[in-house]
Amino acid sequence: MPKKLKKAKPTGKIRIIPLGGLGEIGKNMTVIEYEDDMIVVDCGIGFPDDDMPGIDLVIPDFTYLESNRDKLRGVFLTHGHEDHIGAIPYLLRTVNTPVYGTPLTLGIIRNKLEEHILPWNPDLRVVNATDRVKLGAFEVEFIHVNHSIADACALAIRTPLGTLVHTGDFKLDTSPIDGEMMDIVRLGELGREGVLMLLCESTNAERPGHTPSEKKVGASLEYIFSTHEKKRIVIATFSSNVHRVQQIIDTSARHKRKVAITGRSMLNIVQAAQELGYMKIPAGVLVDINDIKRFKPSELTLITTGSQGEPMSALHRMAFSDHAQVTLGPTDVVVLSSSAIPGNEKLVGRVINELSKNEVEVLHDAVVEVHVSGHACQEELKLMQALTKPKYFMPIHGESRHLAANRDLATFMGIKEKNIFLSEIGKVLEIDSDGARFIGTVPAGKVLVDGYGIGDVGNIVLRDRRHLAQDGLIVVVATVDTDEGLLLSGPDIVSRGFVYVREAEELMEESRQIAYDAIMDVLDNNRKVDRMQLKKQVKDDLTKYLYNKTKRKPMILPVIMNV
Amino acid sequence: MPKKLKKAKPTGKIRIIPLGGLGEIGKNMTVIEYEDDMIVVDCGIGFPDDDMPGIDLVIPDFTYLESNRDKLRGVFLTHGHEDHIGAIPYLLRTVNTPVYGTPLTLGIIRNKLEEHILPWNPDLRVVNATDRVKLGAFEVEFIHVNHSIADACALAIRTPLGTLVHTGDFKLDTSPIDGEMMDIVRLGELGREGVLMLLCESTNAERPGHTPSEKKVGASLEYIFSTHEKKRIVIATFSSNVHRVQQIIDTSARHKRKVAITGRSMLNIVQAAQELGYMKIPAGVLVDINDIKRFKPSELTLITTGSQGEPMSALHRMAFSDHAQVTLGPTDVVVLSSSAIPGNEKLVGRVINELSKNEVEVLHDAVVEVHVSGHACQEELKLMQALTKPKYFMPIHGESRHLAANRDLATFMGIKEKNIFLSEIGKVLEIDSDGARFIGTVPAGKVLVDGYGIGDVGNIVLRDRRHLAQDGLIVVVATVDTDEGLLLSGPDIVSRGFVYVREAEELMEESRQIAYDAIMDVLDNNRKVDRMQLKKQVKDDLTKYLYNKTKRKPMILPVIMNV
Repeated sequence: MPKKLKKAKPTGKIRIIPLGGLGEIGKNMTVIEYEDDMIVVDCGIGFPDDDMPGIDLVIPDFTYLESNRDKLRGVFLTHGHEDHIGAIPYLLRTVNTPVYGTPLTLGIIRNKLEEHILPWNPDLRVVNATDRVKLGAFEVEFIHVNHSIADACALAIRTPLGTLVHTGDFKLDTSPIDGEMMDIVRLGELGREGVLMLLCESTNAERPGHTPSEKKVGASLEYIFSTHEKKRIVIATFSSNVHRVQQIIDTSARHKRKVAITGRSMLNIVQAAQELGYMKIPAGVLVDINDIKRFKPSELTLITTGSQGEPMSALHRMAFSDHAQVTLGPTDVVVLSSSAIPGNEKLVGRVINELSKNEVEVLHDAVVEVHVSGHACQEELKLMQALTKPKYFMPIHGESRHLAANRDLATFMGIKEKNIFLSEIGKVLEIDSDGARFIGTVPAGKVLVDGYGIGDVGNIVLRDRRHLAQDGLIVVVATVDTDEGLLLSGPDIVSRGFVYVREAEELMEESRQIAYDAIMDVLDNNRKVDRMQLKKQVKDDLTKYLYNKTKRKPMILPVIMNV
Repeated sequence: MPKKLKKAKPTGKIRIIPLGGLGEIGKNMTVIEYEDDMIVVDCGIGFPDDDMPGIDLVIPDFTYLESNRDKLRGVFLTHGHEDHIGAIPYLLRTVNTPVYGTPLTLGIIRNKLEEHILPWNPDLRVVNATDRVKLGAFEVEFIHVNHSIADACALAIRTPLGTLVHTGDFKLDTSPIDGEMMDIVRLGELGREGVLMLLCESTNAERPGHTPSEKKVGASLEYIFSTHEKKRIVIATFSSNVHRVQQIIDTSARHKRKVAITGRSMLNIVQAAQELGYMKIPAGVLVDINDIKRFKPSELTLITTGSQGEPMSALHRMAFSDHAQVTLGPTDVVVLSSSAIPGNEKLVGRVINELSKNEVEVLHDAVVEVHVSGHACQEELKLMQALTKPKYFMPIHGESRHLAANRDLATFMGIKEKNIFLSEIGKVLEIDSDGARFIGTVPAGKVLVDGYGIGDVGNIVLRDRRHLAQDGLIVVVATVDTDEGLLLSGPDIVSRGFVYVREAEELMEESRQIAYDAIMDVLDNNRKVDRMQLKKQVKDDLTKYLYNKTKRKPMILPVIMNV
């Protein structure tokens, strides 16, 4: 078949490589390359799973970026939530690259960077919605979206092969607190121009319908304030939800209440948001938490951190009578203006129980609509697809179940199955003028942060921690003269986390005897004794003995010293 | 004021002592005494919290029963759920007392007792709803209620001072699977005769409205079977929910599907329920799990355990390709006919994600109404109060938040505040003809079961396990001659769960040096050296050094041997 003459196609290739946020919640990060130019969208942290004891947080594996640092042109941030920006300080330790974000996003990062020592001055570049940044082969346009933090954007990333739209996190709020609905007009224009690929968040892809407007919460607050005129009102919410905090302050002012704020992150963000103009607090409304004694319960609202039941948070300390300025009782109503993040249900429950015990009234999202999600439900996800009309579709930001649900929505919307790409972290999707396909993988995974250590806690250390947590440990110490085959001292037995030793003297004494027999057995039956052999014998014999006796398998740690 | 002549009041006292199930979920147990007669209602287990690593299960503290064994007349079981009967084998190890329950309840216990060795033959006595048992000062009547297990009862406990009603766990189902609605007529009769106190379960006291009928699940199943004709249908549910399993089998039979059952507890209960006549399986429907290869997906239903995502369950093994007979894929639909018990959300999520990854369709209670609760919501709780019209009210079975919500319902129903008793485990409520009041406490709490050990893991052991899990441990071993003040060998350093040693050689070597310096410092500066002093110095110096270097606090375990 003779080919028709047409405009020369671009010969370059786009590569899309998620380094986090797919098949998991959090640590969102996507690498986008066009030939020798590379940009990154978001750089978030994740939270440790139950099977990662002692771990503070989880960051993406930066290996691929570190080995391609000469290609990296910059990082683009969609909004200021931890799971999108939290790993920036760790990335900037090894890679010096410009970081683009809206004023609030960069304001939060600046705050965060104060706790880190970097080898260079971070290059933070403020942009606003509708701004475009040209960088290498890319032009990146910031597009206003609604979300549970102010100043959130989607990105339109122009490449020689076409435009990619990365939604960031979004919802459609037709009555948002700051007056700005998501810029669906711009998204629609992009759709008319032609969108090569939509990378679309999936958090709520299992949920039918629309996510309610933030204004709904305002109505619930109004109801709560009207029906609790005599009580002090204590409201816990996410500190980053600037609009929520604004609504609480506005409602308080309308009801002639003073507002006091407690919790470090809440104080930080309220200050930053005020300075940047994202929050407007009527004069005379704010009072210092140290001055609340001067007011009656009916004259006060407290805004606090701790809506996830975090043990060190202000609300937790109030609930467990460990807060310097606030003690809660029957004249308080506590409002949890939040929903429990999966895995935090028990922590939140513990706080609610403690409050109930102290006769504090508690209102949470199962009782009153005091929280709305910040993420698009199915109808909004479908609207995003209908606006952008992408050729290719990749669900991002979600566990496998959410990605699968978002894929099903794309299928429903008529995107061909072969044009939908369910990716994984580290998986490389290549797009050229002939099509799109997965072509391989790059290093990706979870890097664990524990104290000052980054990546020094791996699978072996975690396995040991889990083993120790499960049944504790037994240390067996003996001093031997391996040349002469003599036991000089011990064996001594020390145990921790296994059994309460004072009530198990017999078990401990028998264990000592088993260890002694094991050592003597090796010493008596071998001309040349090595310590490995001694250790193995002690470990095997004791493990067997203790399992038979207790059905437990403590870690056995034989230490054989040679004099 | 001259007293009127009236019938002599009984002079005895009732004492009501919850030993579990108040301020917590599970391990339900209530002691009821009249003078020198004592009975117990239920004897359940609880599940370990996140801060109890390695613990298998939690049972009530039996101290009070053990020291009053001569008074104990018997245990009455309301139904066969673990949180009501699971601790019976542990109680019967130390106390030999008759156990009364309905046929299914005792059938489940018999099964359970096979795994325990008791010093005597258990005295299990079968009763049926409407039966009355006279025991000491008490007469206990079993009253049929609806719940998520067959054969559940409330108890009317007659005493010389009046009748106590203990609801057990209940809901009102006007269209139950076994045809028997809760016996509200009998409860109403008791109310007319006069109920002294209602002890009422509180699990769903925060939820408005009515709990839907089990029949609702049947309708959802019918819909799922009709819309998934080509797929194999795999349904996970609670094995004890005999009616649910019956509905799945009936729906399968109607759709000409064979049913295979997998999971040990599911097989056990189906067998027991069939033998006792609680389940009717049409001939030819059941097939062995080993024979399922003979059938097409469209011809099969699998019923399985694992609806809570339990790692050893059949569903978990299927999801993670570790099940001998079943591999799941795109021709399967998995139905989770359950809701996640608080704390299990992440486990359940992990299974859903793994299934989604393997392109298995998953239906759960957020998508289709494939589960209903077994507990009364607010309208049913109010009905229970309206029927029994109790003088005194005690909310039982729930965390503090649920008890408080149930108290609020009682207030709403018009019970006087002074007649509502929010109790705690171990708290003694005394009732006599003059009134009711709390008079003190008896020993109560959580006894932890770990392997064969009952109660040998306490706070110290748990604290050590948590510490070990958090940052691991470092063992420092040295052999000294304390008389001469000489270091003979070591110090050697062994670490587990702290840091990956091969990549932290420098840190380990410096730690050894710190320990060496600490030991030499003590040996050089003291004429008489004791081992405690050596240990303390090593521990203090190393803790400080490691915290500065790593921001971690591993457990430091110095072992100083004396030769």
